[in-house]
Amino acid sequence: MSQERILLAYSGGLDTSCILKWLLEKGHEVICFMADVGQEEDFGAAREKALRIGATDVIVKDMKQQFVERFVWPALQMGLIYEDRYLLGTSLARPCISIGLVEAAAQRGCTIISHGATGKGNDQIRFELSCYALNPTIKVIAPWRLPEFCERFQGRTDLLEYAKKNNIPVSATTKAPWSMDANIMHISYESGLLEDPAIAAPEELYQMTQSPQKSAETPTTVEIIFKDGAAVRASELVSGKTMERPLDILTFLNKIGGEHGVGRIDLVENRFLGLKSRGVYETPGATILHVAHRDLEVYCLDREVFRVKSFLASKMADYVYNGFWYSPEAEYVRSCLVASQRNVTGKVVLEIFKGHAMAVSRESIKSVYNQELASMDVHGSLSPYAATGFIEVNAMRLKEHHRVFGSANMK
Amino acid sequence: MSQERILLAYSGGLDTSCILKWLLEKGHEVICFMADVGQEEDFGAAREKALRIGATDVIVKDMKQQFVERFVWPALQMGLIYEDRYLLGTSLARPCISIGLVEAAAQRGCTIISHGATGKGNDQIRFELSCYALNPTIKVIAPWRLPEFCERFQGRTDLLEYAKKNNIPVSATTKAPWSMDANIMHISYESGLLEDPAIAAPEELYQMTQSPQKSAETPTTVEIIFKDGAAVRASELVSGKTMERPLDILTFLNKIGGEHGVGRIDLVENRFLGLKSRGVYETPGATILHVAHRDLEVYCLDREVFRVKSFLASKMADYVYNGFWYSPEAEYVRSCLVASQRNVTGKVVLEIFKGHAMAVSRESIKSVYNQELASMDVHGSLSPYAATGFIEVNAMRLKEHHRVFGSANMK
Amino acid sequence: MSQERILLAYSGGLDTSCILKWLLEKGHEVICFMADVGQEEDFGAAREKALRIGATDVIVKDMKQQFVERFVWPALQMGLIYEDRYLLGTSLARPCISIGLVEAAAQRGCTIISHGATGKGNDQIRFELSCYALNPTIKVIAPWRLPEFCERFQGRTDLLEYAKKNNIPVSATTKAPWSMDANIMHISYESGLLEDPAIAAPEELYQMTQSPQKSAETPTTVEIIFKDGAAVRASELVSGKTMERPLDILTFLNKIGGEHGVGRIDLVENRFLGLKSRGVYETPGATILHVAHRDLEVYCLDREVFRVKSFLASKMADYVYNGFWYSPEAEYVRSCLVASQRNVTGKVVLEIFKGHAMAVSRESIKSVYNQELASMDVHGSLSPYAATGFIEVNAMRLKEHHRVFGSANMK
Amino acid sequence: MSQERILLAYSGGLDTSCILKWLLEKGHEVICFMADVGQEEDFGAAREKALRIGATDVIVKDMKQQFVERFVWPALQMGLIYEDRYLLGTSLARPCISIGLVEAAAQRGCTIISHGATGKGNDQIRFELSCYALNPTIKVIAPWRLPEFCERFQGRTDLLEYAKKNNIPVSATTKAPWSMDANIMHISYESGLLEDPAIAAPEELYQMTQSPQKSAETPTTVEIIFKDGAAVRASELVSGKTMERPLDILTFLNKIGGEHGVGRIDLVENRFLGLKSRGVYETPGATILHVAHRDLEVYCLDREVFRVKSFLASKMADYVYNGFWYSPEAEYVRSCLVASQRNVTGKVVLEIFKGHAMAVSRESIKSVYNQELASMDVHGSLSPYAATGFIEVNAMRLKEHHRVFGSANMK
Repeated sequence: MSQERILLAYSGGLDTSCILKWLLEKGHEVICFMADVGQEEDFGAAREKALRIGATDVIVKDMKQQFVERFVWPALQMGLIYEDRYLLGTSLARPCISIGLVEAAAQRGCTIISHGATGKGNDQIRFELSCYALNPTIKVIAPWRLPEFCERFQGRTDLLEYAKKNNIPVSATTKAPWSMDANIMHISYESGLLEDPAIAAPEELYQMTQSPQKSAETPTTVEIIFKDGAAVRASELVSGKTMERPLDILTFLNKIGGEHGVGRIDLVENRFLGLKSRGVYETPGATILHVAHRDLEVYCLDREVFRVKSFLASKMADYVYNGFWYSPEAEYVRSCLVASQRNVTGKVVLEIFKGHAMAVSRESIKSVYNQELASMDVHGSLSPYAATGFIEVNAMRLKEHHRVFGSANMK
Repeated sequence: MSQERILLAYSGGLDTSCILKWLLEKGHEVICFMADVGQEEDFGAAREKALRIGATDVIVKDMKQQFVERFVWPALQMGLIYEDRYLLGTSLARPCISIGLVEAAAQRGCTIISHGATGKGNDQIRFELSCYALNPTIKVIAPWRLPEFCERFQGRTDLLEYAKKNNIPVSATTKAPWSMDANIMHISYESGLLEDPAIAAPEELYQMTQSPQKSAETPTTVEIIFKDGAAVRASELVSGKTMERPLDILTFLNKIGGEHGVGRIDLVENRFLGLKSRGVYETPGATILHVAHRDLEVYCLDREVFRVKSFLASKMADYVYNGFWYSPEAEYVRSCLVASQRNVTGKVVLEIFKGHAMAVSRESIKSVYNQELASMDVHGSLSPYAATGFIEVNAMRLKEHHRVFGSANMK
Repeated sequence: MSQERILLAYSGGLDTSCILKWLLEKGHEVICFMADVGQEEDFGAAREKALRIGATDVIVKDMKQQFVERFVWPALQMGLIYEDRYLLGTSLARPCISIGLVEAAAQRGCTIISHGATGKGNDQIRFELSCYALNPTIKVIAPWRLPEFCERFQGRTDLLEYAKKNNIPVSATTKAPWSMDANIMHISYESGLLEDPAIAAPEELYQMTQSPQKSAETPTTVEIIFKDGAAVRASELVSGKTMERPLDILTFLNKIGGEHGVGRIDLVENRFLGLKSRGVYETPGATILHVAHRDLEVYCLDREVFRVKSFLASKMADYVYNGFWYSPEAEYVRSCLVASQRNVTGKVVLEIFKGHAMAVSRESIKSVYNQELASMDVHGSLSPYAATGFIEVNAMRLKEHHRVFGSANMK
Repeated sequence: MSQERILLAYSGGLDTSCILKWLLEKGHEVICFMADVGQEEDFGAAREKALRIGATDVIVKDMKQQFVERFVWPALQMGLIYEDRYLLGTSLARPCISIGLVEAAAQRGCTIISHGATGKGNDQIRFELSCYALNPTIKVIAPWRLPEFCERFQGRTDLLEYAKKNNIPVSATTKAPWSMDANIMHISYESGLLEDPAIAAPEELYQMTQSPQKSAETPTTVEIIFKDGAAVRASELVSGKTMERPLDILTFLNKIGGEHGVGRIDLVENRFLGLKSRGVYETPGATILHVAHRDLEVYCLDREVFRVKSFLASKMADYVYNGFWYSPEAEYVRSCLVASQRNVTGKVVLEIFKGHAMAVSRESIKSVYNQELASMDVHGSLSPYAATGFIEVNAMRLKEHHRVFGSANMK
């Protein structure tokens, strides 16, 4: 490639610092971009480091609000969960950061975007598909997939050596024996010792949540109000604290969930490339919101609408996990899912304690729940004789089947 | 109806005792049937009571093993869960009890089966569809759906009066302000004060599980071994206790789960008749097994097989909830689901504490998990350059879409 | 029931004439309602007959345009087809007629609607669910499900006798040995000799379509233009005739399709009640529109959107067939399906000949079809090397599977 | 790559002849492999041509029976159809040919398989995924994706020139302005003038089927017997000819279907790579079998089983189209689909005429079809009053919805 102005998704870590230097050595001009999506990071130090290595400029963009409002909230509203357990914290951050990258590239006249994601992970795909969807003419360079780069850097040792040779400062603290990716929604951990799915994650790994064993000894009660499937208020009953903006709600529930050890999961998942990987996640606030939303949703939605909606949400979770947040199918299915939430409006009360968030009560004026009808003590508006016909009709198909094929086997 | 020999599903409670008397008054001969599916019950006292009221005989059948092996185990193997949360404890017991009913009816020459389920619930449907599928010529009488019976008994007061008049003993203890249905898998609670979904279930309601607040202060670790998706061994690491038969495993895990407050849920669900009802469930052992199975399943199953299998399990959960355990579709889908579990073989370790069961490690020789391939530190067997082509191809569809319809919107 | 003012869905035939008389005998006041949805009918004669029997009034409402625009067009736009073959002509007419019934009932102060549909068919369900959804307080009386009525009228002979006794004129022409239901979209035939699925439908049964053997000897070419999935223009190339309003388009294509023998099907279908029934249908114009729409849809829609949309359409077809046109789920899924059609805009050319309509060409400015990209002769915008990576990644999962479980079996 | 013994999937055409020569020039030893899957081909001439160019050997393997029995028959039994219209003739042939390739490679000690499929089509994927699944250690070389090859051969002109220079005979007949792929199941046409979806395919393109206009003037009637979803006998009533082996049945029905112009389709489809392409297909015999099977299937299968089965078939069609015939998911779903066919046993009679095959009668002892139950004239085994309860229960959910959200809108 000829010499170009490149926008590099920079993390301040060893990999992207080496990539920065390497791109500079190739004769490119490099502007670094850091998205603040809520991770703990010394952005000032990272900026200085990049500039010292030779970056023309370093952009640090606060995307927390955008991330929460345009990605986390819709995902919770849609009820997205990947393979029954993963709330998609990293998958959601990638298209958000991609917006930052594409916008910054346009502003700074960069025709190329580069990143440090490796060739076996999901993130490369999420970044690149998002960038291409947002700007089909952009070029993306992934050094970890370039033969030249991979041959030069066979592993961490080569990077450390290269850093030393080029006066790139390397963190003095010992690298944790796993990697992590953090944002305001969650932290994910993988690699290193986690690569053996039989080894339990060590307690010291977790950073957002207390161990349930050490967490608060008293439960707390939280009340969450949803409008059209989106959380619009969260209150902790004991403290009386109330938050209303998405970013505030999430921060607030992260604190509560963290103190009570809520939202840890440890699993093996299927990556888009077709391999399985082990991940450990902590997602305190979003877990509380997900539990609350799921409770209210079944309460408010028509039974059949709920089934269709659930099918669509499982498709959407795959789209998002696989990097297709910006795609015709995600745009379409998202519009369908949002439409399903029109009446998911009401209040859920949850008890939070020792790693567990449990809905204990819910209210809604949009629910068809009918206490009189549900009551076993009142004959109510449904004639009890109606069920006789209903059962007779449903039994007919079974009886006909058994007429031809014999009765069901009692074993 | 003419005078017949009727088999009555008898519980020993007020309703079925009054039904027994009422059927006798109509001139029928009545044999009572009680299935022991693990509920706490003084079967001797109930038997005596029924005989005193006038039953020709009372059959008490121990169906615990049958229930666990033919219903609970397959359901856990299939991963059944209704509307994302309910493990179907009552729904599974109904077809099991129906076997007992149909067999006893055949043995005792009863042409009619009667039960005390009401006209707005699911159980009437589950009992009757199961009975009809097992013996299409049987007749079922549901007094709570007979005009004559309903007119005579408008509510509990009429039943109490009738009991008094007929010397039917009524339990001296005050009736709990809710109803419950128990078996070895779970207890479900509904009705009464639970009919208001905004009122949290009182702590004294729960009988199988300790409150997380009062539960054991030390976590325990459990190891469960699955073969072809079915649990074949459970061990508690600290005590070294190990169980291998389904009934023993479930009893054992019920005890552990109960002590640690695992398996409570409180929700509103959609009944088959089309109304919503509020239910509270405690399912300690089966919750642990479900969590373990789900963890191992994603670990062992191919990604695409898992998706198809998940779709089928959601259909099957509806079938079972709605009373179609014995139906062409359930028979078919069950065979497909069991086939999917062929390689779900291995071990899962769970930490159990304060209402929460969490998988922390898993092992299997049937998983395609490939540590080297998953490792971010090793280039491994997948050429990193392959992902470039993979992404380029996937991006093409998105680019083409945006060529025609414009780029994705950054908002 | 007390004496009420009843609105009777009247057909002019034997059944509803006897029902009319019977309701009058019961002391009710009866207003008859006939919806003109395009069936061949002497409405004047029917009106006179009803008045002579004793109806207070007879309403004949022209609902053809409403039927086509609000039911047939949306169904074709959504691509609804039941069990792969049936275009739902009768199922769509029922909710349309129900609107007429509910509106007329309101205008005339009728609190009860009555109809002549039998107790084993789908139509009773469609009528009643639609009426209840449109006006939950309306009452529906279905004499064919009333014990009193059924005991009096065991079959056709009883009806004929009753008619004779009451001076109800009976058509002199011999009744065809099947029943039919006609509207502007289709005619359906069932019952009588068609009840044996092994007996082929006789040629004289068909009324809208020529036998392919006797149909026109020259093909004709039709061009249909769709906007957002709805047909907005149809032209026959040879005659130059062009139609633009839905009702005109359908009438026009019925004529062409009829002359060319298009749209006959003969099948066994699953009724909502759980039994199977044999139906023969002729649907000339709508078949042409369906074939054209399906062709354009795959041309215009994104691959993944098409898959989701197809799943939703199969759900919707079941809803409509089962009588749930007016239901929360149908309202929801319909909104999703309509949203999917936003870009199904373009032109399809079909050749019509001897029972067959075949799309032979299509054009759209909303398709992502890219001739250069598709061309096998041009390397084009997709690097040929990209596919190598794409295949390598896809192969990895298969290889991993076979690493653990052995290679695929060549048998 | 070093010099190896390569097995080349050879067609006798210009592309693979040039590839053969080019591989030889690279110093490899090349054995050619031709699978006879029923295409019209002068295998002797092709063999001679390859040997003259320099192939070490040419293997011509008759795979017709294997293709029909192991691929076509299961596909028809499963009811596979891609995007509602395409019966997958080419998709099915690829894994079959791959078996031939992998077996021949093993027998002849070839470590590499090469083919002439281009970089934008589906066939490269189908060949390679099949080969890798059958033998994960095999290497596949696709010259049309090798930079060196693509640079040398920019298009057809370069190939022609290379052929001339190397004395590779080129067919004297003018190349048709489209490409075709033929086997005993179908011929597919694409490329060239077909690349414009607005241009109708010219009549002279079709080779297996007569134009409906010129096809036989008298319909013929065919009777097909299925056992467990697979065709086991086909008879033409007028001639009395009967076939029983799959290959014979297909050949026989190809002849009948061809004479009557059955099985042409013209469409745009979505390729696995994400682009759309236009294809024209003629599939006479398999179309007749598909129509017959579909008819019998709804007749025999339980309603709910049919729905699940249809969902699975749509997944399987995608797997097969995309090249995953040999994959965990296809193996799994195929086993489910085959299980669904256990009772699809019976006879279908079709009328075949002028491009159209229509089922007109069917018989089965495995159908639950119940003439008495279906009859509108007999009250039969379903109490007509049962439907009242059935409707009341179904209406309740709708009424409840409308109680909260207002009645359905009449518009």
